[in-house]
Amino acid sequence: MTQLIDVHTHIVPNSFPDSPDKEGEPKWPCMVCEGDSAKILIEDKPYRQLDSRSWDVNRRIEDMDRTKVARQALSPMPELLSYWFKPSAGMEMCLWMNKVIAEMVALHPGRFSGLGIVPMQDPAMAAKMLTRIKADGFSGVEIGSNINEVMLGDSRFDEFFAEAEAQDLAIFVHALRPIGVERLNKFPDLVPFAAFPLDTALTAVSLIRAGIPHKYPRLRIGFSHGGGAIVPLVHRLTQGWKLTKSFGGSLPETPQSYAARFFYDSLVYDPGYLSYLMTDFAPGQYFAGTDYPYAIMERDPAAFIGQTSIADKDSLLFQAAERFLGIA
Amino acid sequence: MTQLIDVHTHIVPNSFPDSPDKEGEPKWPCMVCEGDSAKILIEDKPYRQLDSRSWDVNRRIEDMDRTKVARQALSPMPELLSYWFKPSAGMEMCLWMNKVIAEMVALHPGRFSGLGIVPMQDPAMAAKMLTRIKADGFSGVEIGSNINEVMLGDSRFDEFFAEAEAQDLAIFVHALRPIGVERLNKFPDLVPFAAFPLDTALTAVSLIRAGIPHKYPRLRIGFSHGGGAIVPLVHRLTQGWKLTKSFGGSLPETPQSYAARFFYDSLVYDPGYLSYLMTDFAPGQYFAGTDYPYAIMERDPAAFIGQTSIADKDSLLFQAAERFLGIA
Repeated sequence: MTQLIDVHTHIVPNSFPDSPDKEGEPKWPCMVCEGDSAKILIEDKPYRQLDSRSWDVNRRIEDMDRTKVARQALSPMPELLSYWFKPSAGMEMCLWMNKVIAEMVALHPGRFSGLGIVPMQDPAMAAKMLTRIKADGFSGVEIGSNINEVMLGDSRFDEFFAEAEAQDLAIFVHALRPIGVERLNKFPDLVPFAAFPLDTALTAVSLIRAGIPHKYPRLRIGFSHGGGAIVPLVHRLTQGWKLTKSFGGSLPETPQSYAARFFYDSLVYDPGYLSYLMTDFAPGQYFAGTDYPYAIMERDPAAFIGQTSIADKDSLLFQAAERFLGIA
Repeated sequence: MTQLIDVHTHIVPNSFPDSPDKEGEPKWPCMVCEGDSAKILIEDKPYRQLDSRSWDVNRRIEDMDRTKVARQALSPMPELLSYWFKPSAGMEMCLWMNKVIAEMVALHPGRFSGLGIVPMQDPAMAAKMLTRIKADGFSGVEIGSNINEVMLGDSRFDEFFAEAEAQDLAIFVHALRPIGVERLNKFPDLVPFAAFPLDTALTAVSLIRAGIPHKYPRLRIGFSHGGGAIVPLVHRLTQGWKLTKSFGGSLPETPQSYAARFFYDSLVYDPGYLSYLMTDFAPGQYFAGTDYPYAIMERDPAAFIGQTSIADKDSLLFQAAERFLGIA
């Protein structure tokens, strides 16, 4: 059996505690379950239709066995990152989500790894929470591509990245409430299909420009959707680096060289493009990711990887994932 | 001598007429020339430092001879597209810019082609103006990647695209006042170095999603900066196409197949990526482009093209440009 590790999968618990502040946090989610399926409600409106794949580890394992996935990293559906709550309510949600994920991992630790969440709207609180994340056996955390519209390169997040490196925890960056939405009201389907990769790429280059991979060389940051639109941005930023004398000396190496140290998932839907990325852009830094169990997921990751032109596929199948998740 | 055609070059005239409405249009530009150099002022503030390469065809030809460029397409510095003016003032600016470009082309028609501008803030007026653009010998027009934040796929621009196809005029889409700027205030250098490719890509996929290349199959649209971040967006949109039954049947072919009919310039700063694009994404649809005479320009396009791994380089050097500009 292929030792495929799928780093990009999401979970939703089949229940949430009551809102800690019904008046103050009207966006606190609520689940309405009916047998195998469920609706998640936000502000009393259906946000997404779900089924038991979101919370039932046995059903997940059936799917994993069928699609030759040895291990999944479990991270919350990104809308549950809850950065728009006050920090105290955000912390409540983080504790709940992390408890649910830890319980799912504990049922089959040979098949699942956990990526928890932290209240990034309060970076000091988020940094402090990493100690507990580590102690509870998580491989790392999932964070949004922006925190209430602030890109991750903003200096307010420095202490979080410093602590993640110190705790040896992976950071999986997932697109969330992306830029460009305000220009897409005539094209609502372009939000998930086109704007997600833009936000991921912009936050990645903000991290490079802010010197995060230079300051924290052992930090492991992985980006969803193959880093989104990162490739042309990094090449253009590298041209800027040459013109500005490495941004006034603040970046000793090229943006391209920092980008080649990030991790990325394989969720680009095109084996030719993935082959290019793995050969030319960031060799050895791509791990499998599917977006299981959502509609847009890559349904047969082993077949998809098989279509790439990479000779040695183990890096993509499991080696990069093991390094990223710290389970080598 | 290599028959290199550079489709992406900009001009600025060395003078502007007085504002047609000093109170109503405070952003009307003004040039302050001092010998060979000049500052363009907008709202009495310096917008960009320029030199005579922006308006002096003889100086341009010296540079072209030195860098083996047989022909340049001349288009205005994008900030002169002037969509933020009232249509009547915008029309004044278009008439001025087109007059200047036509005069530059007329001096050396064997070395220059013209890309004019039209007041896209009034799509009917813009469409109507194309008749004159054609009669005045322009190869096409340059338009922004958004028109006052409205993406080009918006249905208000349909009549413009229909008329451009009818007049057999090329459309060169250039990044302008991009999305994401509001999130980049801590990273101002990321606006030119990172946000431009995002806006170009988003507008390109909005055109695909709106069915423009399906409705106007003979329309020639070319995108600056290699289409920016278009590649991952098109692959993701293609996944969306599969999931939604071709967006409910509204797109008979895949987004990828429409993207492969657009034209793109070579301004991606990385020969490996350009080789990928030309081999895999849109074979035969890339023409040379440098952003001459600005700081970020590709200084030696012939050498850059020489570094690609494409066996037959004539398509990139001049054949795609000839088809795009209609000068075959």
